[in-house]
Amino acid sequence: MSQHEVRVAVLGAGTVGSQVIRLLGERAEDFAQRSGARLTLVGIGDRKVDAPRPDYIDRSLLTTDLTALATSADLVVELIGGIEPARTLVLAALNSGASVVTANKALLATHGPELFEAAAAADTDLYYEAAVAGAVPIVYALRESLAGDTVTRVLGIVNGTTNFILDEMATKGVGFDEALATAQQLGYAEADPTADVDGLDAAAKAALLASLAFHTRVSIADVSVEGVRAITAADIAQAAESGYALKLLAICDRLDDGVSVRVRPTLLPLSHPLASVHGVFNAVVVEAEAAGRLMFYGRGAGGSAAASAVLSDVVAAASHKAHGGHAPRESAYAALRVLGPEEVRTALSVRLKVADEVGVLAGVAGVFAGNGISIESVRQSPANGDSTITIVSHVARLGDLMRTVEELRASASVHEILSVTAVETH
Amino acid sequence: MSQHEVRVAVLGAGTVGSQVIRLLGERAEDFAQRSGARLTLVGIGDRKVDAPRPDYIDRSLLTTDLTALATSADLVVELIGGIEPARTLVLAALNSGASVVTANKALLATHGPELFEAAAAADTDLYYEAAVAGAVPIVYALRESLAGDTVTRVLGIVNGTTNFILDEMATKGVGFDEALATAQQLGYAEADPTADVDGLDAAAKAALLASLAFHTRVSIADVSVEGVRAITAADIAQAAESGYALKLLAICDRLDDGVSVRVRPTLLPLSHPLASVHGVFNAVVVEAEAAGRLMFYGRGAGGSAAASAVLSDVVAAASHKAHGGHAPRESAYAALRVLGPEEVRTALSVRLKVADEVGVLAGVAGVFAGNGISIESVRQSPANGDSTITIVSHVARLGDLMRTVEELRASASVHEILSVTAVETH
Repeated sequence: MSQHEVRVAVLGAGTVGSQVIRLLGERAEDFAQRSGARLTLVGIGDRKVDAPRPDYIDRSLLTTDLTALATSADLVVELIGGIEPARTLVLAALNSGASVVTANKALLATHGPELFEAAAAADTDLYYEAAVAGAVPIVYALRESLAGDTVTRVLGIVNGTTNFILDEMATKGVGFDEALATAQQLGYAEADPTADVDGLDAAAKAALLASLAFHTRVSIADVSVEGVRAITAADIAQAAESGYALKLLAICDRLDDGVSVRVRPTLLPLSHPLASVHGVFNAVVVEAEAAGRLMFYGRGAGGSAAASAVLSDVVAAASHKAHGGHAPRESAYAALRVLGPEEVRTALSVRLKVADEVGVLAGVAGVFAGNGISIESVRQSPANGDSTITIVSHVARLGDLMRTVEELRASASVHEILSVTAVETH
Repeated sequence: MSQHEVRVAVLGAGTVGSQVIRLLGERAEDFAQRSGARLTLVGIGDRKVDAPRPDYIDRSLLTTDLTALATSADLVVELIGGIEPARTLVLAALNSGASVVTANKALLATHGPELFEAAAAADTDLYYEAAVAGAVPIVYALRESLAGDTVTRVLGIVNGTTNFILDEMATKGVGFDEALATAQQLGYAEADPTADVDGLDAAAKAALLASLAFHTRVSIADVSVEGVRAITAADIAQAAESGYALKLLAICDRLDDGVSVRVRPTLLPLSHPLASVHGVFNAVVVEAEAAGRLMFYGRGAGGSAAASAVLSDVVAAASHKAHGGHAPRESAYAALRVLGPEEVRTALSVRLKVADEVGVLAGVAGVFAGNGISIESVRQSPANGDSTITIVSHVARLGDLMRTVEELRASASVHEILSVTAVETH
């Protein structure tokens, strides 16, 4: 066995950090075999030195001086989350020559390029498998397994909290507030659920996925986002009646004129592989020119799923520290144009309450046509004098679609816009 | 861009080889960016120099001297298949310091340890993503993405030909011979389908999966195999009636007393994620202690799916050639015991035609009990004087189960053994 030693620091001893620390101890022999190096935990950085800790945490390793710790190890595991001080600490660690493993999607989706450049300049590694889809190895897949192919599309359920909420609404018929409360009781949603339910967490992951898949710089600010807060039990019931599941999807497309990245509640045919992803599970579909359609599925959240991903990154980074080499560099060499929110492409399903009069459908269809949008299907069902029309458009620019919706809203014969949802038809 | 050059030789210019050669040309710029090295095709080794070739194959690169080519390149792509001369050529390439990328599951499942040792001794790479499940990156997942976790189980549909045949039988109600003929017409099965239908191809892949997952040397000779030749339309109809799909599964288990590796037609509840894998698709479920259950799904066969996997390996190996480092070494450090065919564990479903007499069920149950096998469920349905009993056992040693079946066959009150099939109950 190897005599190499890699000195590991863990910043942040919360749920995931504690699991990582426990497994670093319990599986030391395995990790030494797999990385060819002995992993020595040299410090645990956490502000709350006096907090109660499980027995497997050696209190003598705890320190509040995170900067000193981050710059004195060979390998730094950053599990603090948030932008600062995480950004400063990760940069300091990389600049000192340490490899960094992080689960911090917000940091990477905002400051990724700066951090990847620092890693390359210091000839060290920056790994972040746990930042996207928990234990599902989608970062590896895009960065390494598909390096010989051309990815055209990535679409996924990458936020377990909202998938649980939508699933709860679908199976129990409850409203958003009740489903959110259940998610909070079960520990699947935080007290402040904003990042999850407003789609920001998924948007950060979409930015990372698109950057990797298309070798193009995509930041969270480039992502067109809509969360699930406005979804009603009626929307979901209506979707099920029409043979669809309603899911919060992150969709990254490589189009002729650029890269389209969006996060949006989306109707999926029940036969689509992502339609049967339930509860807090995550799944990502990748479409590549030669490989065709691939799917990756697993637990997207939870301390042990994240710890699994973090520790796999630790083994890879430790192996490089001991034996040379590095992970493929994140490179935005393709530098494709990133489409703005108006230009993003999607198909839309619009459900309207209209007057039950002659010519109304022609008028509604005319609004679509006037904005250059062709229609995939129309369904009309009369109810109490009013009539409900559901129109599914072909794929079009989001700006044109939204303008269409606003014109419909202003139209005298449209009494109410019942719902506006993205649709994937295959 | 980098000035590194990696000289690539392709041995075998069949379906996959031609795709690889085409894409090496078309995507040269992409591959240079991703690997940090220019990939130069220096030779194409094929016995049939005079065969007609597509335009993108530069005939001046063709040679029949495979040994000279294999030992004069930086990176050798072996797509000849079979044991010899592939083994000798791969060894010669590795010994000369070249990295090797192969899709040859039979070679690896038979001579893997010798080849991995040669790669380690020469400090070079041996990659083989395309050898298991085509474009599905399961080798990467087990070798790298799950390096920080402990895998307890791998089960998968890893042979597209037999999955297509069983699917065809299930959806069209046709018999094995007709389904095989259709598979042959569509190019999904070869003229001699032995390796596929007798489970040997799946067994080679199971050996590779188990070796990777459990860090233990498992060769194809260790795998308990049964193919699909004996499956009847009635077996599949009966399975469907009971809420099961019948699939040829490769199952690798890490048990307290060793590693159990088997390939066998297996009843799966329709709710199991693998039950809905249709046609020539492949899918692999991995269960790991921290990550929980992961699934990987995609096209298992076809020139372009295999080419995708081969080229990703080429990019990784080229990057190491240019910039140092190597893939994680295949190590059998865990050296777990590999259970023999008698010791392999499974649950079994046995369908019997018995005399419709008092005491028959007690007698049948007694045979199970006498062999130390407990029963999960029994179903009895009378038909024309005879009666059909379906018994599902708990998980037990295969040797004990088979002895039980033989005793039942010899029993006077058992008129016929209708079927004996493995079952996964969760």
